[in-house]
Amino acid sequence: MKKLINDPADVVAEALKGMAAAHPDLLRVDHEQRIVYRADAPVQGKVGLVSGGGSGHEPLHGGFVGPGMLDAACAGEVFTSPVPDQMMAATRGVDGGVGVLHIVKNYTGDVMNFEMAAEMAAAETGVEVVAVVTNDDVAVQDSLYTAGRRGVGGTVLVEKIAGAAADEGRDLAGVADVARRVNDGARSMGMALTSCTVPAAGRPTFDLGEDEIEIGIGIHGEPGRRRVPAAPAREVAEMIMEPILADLDFTGDDGVIAFVNGMGGTPLIELYVVYNEVATILAKAGVSVARSLVGPYITSLEMAGCSVTLLKVDDELLRLWDAPVKTPGLRWRA
Amino acid sequence: MKKLINDPADVVAEALKGMAAAHPDLLRVDHEQRIVYRADAPVQGKVGLVSGGGSGHEPLHGGFVGPGMLDAACAGEVFTSPVPDQMMAATRGVDGGVGVLHIVKNYTGDVMNFEMAAEMAAAETGVEVVAVVTNDDVAVQDSLYTAGRRGVGGTVLVEKIAGAAADEGRDLAGVADVARRVNDGARSMGMALTSCTVPAAGRPTFDLGEDEIEIGIGIHGEPGRRRVPAAPAREVAEMIMEPILADLDFTGDDGVIAFVNGMGGTPLIELYVVYNEVATILAKAGVSVARSLVGPYITSLEMAGCSVTLLKVDDELLRLWDAPVKTPGLRWRA
Repeated sequence: MKKLINDPADVVAEALKGMAAAHPDLLRVDHEQRIVYRADAPVQGKVGLVSGGGSGHEPLHGGFVGPGMLDAACAGEVFTSPVPDQMMAATRGVDGGVGVLHIVKNYTGDVMNFEMAAEMAAAETGVEVVAVVTNDDVAVQDSLYTAGRRGVGGTVLVEKIAGAAADEGRDLAGVADVARRVNDGARSMGMALTSCTVPAAGRPTFDLGEDEIEIGIGIHGEPGRRRVPAAPAREVAEMIMEPILADLDFTGDDGVIAFVNGMGGTPLIELYVVYNEVATILAKAGVSVARSLVGPYITSLEMAGCSVTLLKVDDELLRLWDAPVKTPGLRWRA
Repeated sequence: MKKLINDPADVVAEALKGMAAAHPDLLRVDHEQRIVYRADAPVQGKVGLVSGGGSGHEPLHGGFVGPGMLDAACAGEVFTSPVPDQMMAATRGVDGGVGVLHIVKNYTGDVMNFEMAAEMAAAETGVEVVAVVTNDDVAVQDSLYTAGRRGVGGTVLVEKIAGAAADEGRDLAGVADVARRVNDGARSMGMALTSCTVPAAGRPTFDLGEDEIEIGIGIHGEPGRRRVPAAPAREVAEMIMEPILADLDFTGDDGVIAFVNGMGGTPLIELYVVYNEVATILAKAGVSVARSLVGPYITSLEMAGCSVTLLKVDDELLRLWDAPVKTPGLRWRA
């Protein structure tokens, strides 16, 4: 295992120190609790957005904290859920008096811990909490850490769009409704060329042969649909797009946000090769692309591979997508 | 070699198609000549900025085309200089009547071809061209493809800051002066945990042992200063920061832009661990950080590793750094 780390036990704590040092204008980090806050949290009168999950998926979630997106993110150990105490502290820390939305990827530990945190926060401080669970991965129904579908790339889009809705001053029910609509209209599927190594484990999470790829992989290396021989990008794109397009009708006047995500170890030049294939498939399927996002936004450590997320949009969701955002990971505001 | 590509011969052409498909609002691509233009080029009355070089370093350079940064980027084959005809076409294509700046990384092929292109463009169309050659890499004096120092991460900062100067309406001499000042104040050094594979070659560019890293690596895998046993991030950061800090005095009231760059295969969580070490070293050295940039901005295909660039700034350079930019790779404008 060659990694740019010190002691494997310190990776998350040191990465959070690095984030705090790099982005003092945007972020404030509670190193004790491992919570990344936007620098000016809580914002009075604004619905607070909290997400979080295991580390190793950066920039998700801490890199999406800032104006127009999340108010706080709880960092667990690598590929391990944060704990309810963290989530409760984050919930209190972003409470601007009008409630808090939890954005939770559908993994059993995350869902359970966020539920406990919401109950504790409500009981202790009376803050109203609504949770939206993302489950956009069409690859498999149940999985290693999940009942139902896994939450993956759609989560990035939920955080951006719900963040914009909160920025506009909507109430908790309204922000939660937008978040649910994004999740309902998003479908994703991923694939891996290589495994990845959790620092504390020191060996690859799974084994993949020299000429083998896995279609439908989870972001923690959970099994996908099948292993196949390494194939050209054209065929890979077809294998991940077919189940997405089969799962929801993406045709329609307003089109989609097409998001080609890198798993952490795949260079951008390859992601653009994949995007080219995705665009070709969408054109053939009669799906128009309203916006795109290409890059590593929800990663799996140094795994090589990609995922595609499509989000069916309407005028309102597009407007919220285009709204200013200023976070370390996603930014279109000075 | 497992990569998300089709035929190795088509990687650059297909990645450019992907870029064009993903960013129609920002970019226009001449697929024949392999030039990425900002969508509204040429901008009349503005100095045009052209860069380019071998592909495989994305988002550099095509991903830095757009308002506030480059007007055009010429894409060569992977790790291979573009040709003078391309550069001449790009120069003409961005000529808004007040001259064109070439931003050239110091590699012999790039420098020679940009020189030829400048002469051809001047002779054919009378456009005035000034070239600024970046050579910020302190690792080695001469190298596989370079006489003198190599141009690396500082190039990103030159493109951003000179782009802002051009946006402000400065004349060619003024924009070139800003670009030179950025290059003069920037120092970089990189390191690799792994090699990378040029698609057309099909095998790693160099060999690096399982427990070995290379300090001072070039962005094409050119030899660095030395190979050492794999070491903690803390020691790696010291090995690349020491030569940077020894080469230029970065202390002073205005501080630096601290840029921790990923080589393509290194996940963001590791770059933040490195940033934490860099911040600690800078604090000890009495160097204050005015701004930071953390992420994969000048890559070497899927190479795992990082580089650090420090740029000594003043009020003017900081203001230009903060100025709005809207490109696929760097963006802080709606």
